[in-house]
Amino acid sequence: MSDVGDRMTEELYININPLQTAGRTYADTRKAVFSWMDGYAVCDACKGSLRTTDKPPIRSFLSEVSEFLGMDDTMLTNGAREAKFAVIHSICERGDWILADGNAHYSTMVAAERNSIPVELTETTGHPTYEVTPKHFIEKIEEGTEKHGRPPALAVLTHVDGNYGNILDVKAISKACHLRGVPVLLNTAYSTGRMPVNGKSLGVDFMACSAHKSWATGGGNAGLLAIREEHLDKVLRYSRDYPIKPLEILGCSTRGSEVVALITAFPHIVERVKNWDIEVRHAQYALKRLLDSGGFDLLGAMPKRHDLIAVETPAYDEIAKMHKKKGYFLSKELKSRGIIGIKPGRTKKFKFSTFGLNDEQLEYLVETFIDIKNI
Amino acid sequence: MSDVGDRMTEELYININPLQTAGRTYADTRKAVFSWMDGYAVCDACKGSLRTTDKPPIRSFLSEVSEFLGMDDTMLTNGAREAKFAVIHSICERGDWILADGNAHYSTMVAAERNSIPVELTETTGHPTYEVTPKHFIEKIEEGTEKHGRPPALAVLTHVDGNYGNILDVKAISKACHLRGVPVLLNTAYSTGRMPVNGKSLGVDFMACSAHKSWATGGGNAGLLAIREEHLDKVLRYSRDYPIKPLEILGCSTRGSEVVALITAFPHIVERVKNWDIEVRHAQYALKRLLDSGGFDLLGAMPKRHDLIAVETPAYDEIAKMHKKKGYFLSKELKSRGIIGIKPGRTKKFKFSTFGLNDEQLEYLVETFIDIKNI
Repeated sequence: MSDVGDRMTEELYININPLQTAGRTYADTRKAVFSWMDGYAVCDACKGSLRTTDKPPIRSFLSEVSEFLGMDDTMLTNGAREAKFAVIHSICERGDWILADGNAHYSTMVAAERNSIPVELTETTGHPTYEVTPKHFIEKIEEGTEKHGRPPALAVLTHVDGNYGNILDVKAISKACHLRGVPVLLNTAYSTGRMPVNGKSLGVDFMACSAHKSWATGGGNAGLLAIREEHLDKVLRYSRDYPIKPLEILGCSTRGSEVVALITAFPHIVERVKNWDIEVRHAQYALKRLLDSGGFDLLGAMPKRHDLIAVETPAYDEIAKMHKKKGYFLSKELKSRGIIGIKPGRTKKFKFSTFGLNDEQLEYLVETFIDIKNI
Repeated sequence: MSDVGDRMTEELYININPLQTAGRTYADTRKAVFSWMDGYAVCDACKGSLRTTDKPPIRSFLSEVSEFLGMDDTMLTNGAREAKFAVIHSICERGDWILADGNAHYSTMVAAERNSIPVELTETTGHPTYEVTPKHFIEKIEEGTEKHGRPPALAVLTHVDGNYGNILDVKAISKACHLRGVPVLLNTAYSTGRMPVNGKSLGVDFMACSAHKSWATGGGNAGLLAIREEHLDKVLRYSRDYPIKPLEILGCSTRGSEVVALITAFPHIVERVKNWDIEVRHAQYALKRLLDSGGFDLLGAMPKRHDLIAVETPAYDEIAKMHKKKGYFLSKELKSRGIIGIKPGRTKKFKFSTFGLNDEQLEYLVETFIDIKNI
């Protein structure tokens, strides 16, 4: 049998993996997880359903989070993908189809496929900006409606995509969808928890959130599904025979320490999204320095408005051709300089995140990226 | 915003809550969760899918656990209920129905209901033994087949039920089901992880396991779905466009510290099921002492073969009628004596678990139960 070993990623390195930078836990979350770690610990004072539990204060947390997100109600889910599956499962019927942007995450696709619901993807502006505009959505609604004989049952919008860190114009796209009778599910895996997002002002019907990705939640995977009132009866529907148990989360979803992790992370989240402008400035600074230095090209839209930065790196690719470690030289070189989180072997392009770095770390990161061009 | 507080259940009390006694974490699990706590930490060395991850050693763990359970392959799920949902979702079609024993857990019912699949429940022997026999299954298969015009698409067997701790005669029931062409899903939420269970010798097609309930797994909810080879193509099926991503777990299920918790708990599980006879002796001892003392009656089958014990307690109910705290006197009295885990307010009957108690704790528990009759 195998040892899992110790993970020292955060203790020994600057981690720039976009998947992980906003999922780092705060000290009080670590303390809470340690205290509430055992199986079903959060069910000590069970009142029949996780969402009505007052000790730990899950019920009040869900109210607070609904207000924070500008939505009417919120369900705890096992993650953003499980939230997306739940919405599709609740509102789509056989023969329906759904629309998603051309930068949709694979988990949107598998959530639809598991429901046997086909997905039509919008075009994007393609290389190098990969933007998706309201026009792309409108075109695909029309095209798909012709193909399937009905309008889409749902549009899933990737608020911030995980490849380029582009931010959709959700307000305009939602409006276009609603004008055509299409409800909107916003995948906020890379937005809520990092940046301010208000579902009401964006005009979305559902929001899927990834707590372990962007809400600093540890101790297990967790997500949130925030819902506008008019859809509650369909998505937050209860079992016929167990009327306290929401069907789409099989009664209780995050029935472990992840829910206390999320509750204890929440005050940090509420504070940190207020500093989103600093995060954006950091990203823009890093990008500008790289572009100015030469050998780097941005993938994604300008101006940069998110901490996830994708770059093409012809400068590194040239080195890889000659280097004895080939494409692996970059991740090895970075690691030897205390930076981790780049997919090993890639030198043509890569993505990284500046989320949570302080000025000194940011400067060191940029200097290191530039310096490695000269090895 | 609210404080989750510290949970001191295990530090300050003897916990006899059947939901929790086999979900207590071992020290090395706590260490591993602490190390792997951050969001998506287990994805550091992602190869595209959780089940193929070698660092932490998830791939090899899944092989070991399949062997341990006497099954051919195993999927990580977010829990036993999610495993049951996945099986029903994979193998049932519109118009199908499933069969379950009369002691089925509510999560079996909501897993079916979420799939819009009706459930027919077998009879039981009723009060006070609540046993379910192969004959009950055969009768309900015949009755249900007449009613629905087809045999059940699946039989879900509650190996050990959560109300009485009865153990089904799985071998005989599986045989009866298979003779009638009905595949068998064994809900092992209260069995695997506590007692030795071999799917092959029991003849089941699927096993749903609750890691946070019975496999000493903390740091989030987790489960296992073990599968016989002939059903792999249906249940462990992959996405068309993302052929490394199993559809029924949306690619990756337990993508947080719960999976390292499960891996580190596993060696303890392998060892502790060897001592199941001690656990059974403990349960039988506690029960005998209570029955001998008078004022207690067993709910469930004799002989007692599981740590979950349900008793009717006319002795306590008499006290509750006179006591100023009414039905709450019992949980308060137990708590004041260092015992926790009984649902507050109940004195007519309750259930408790002796799992993991040492001889001294067991004796103290029994003496306390008996002593409280005389307050």
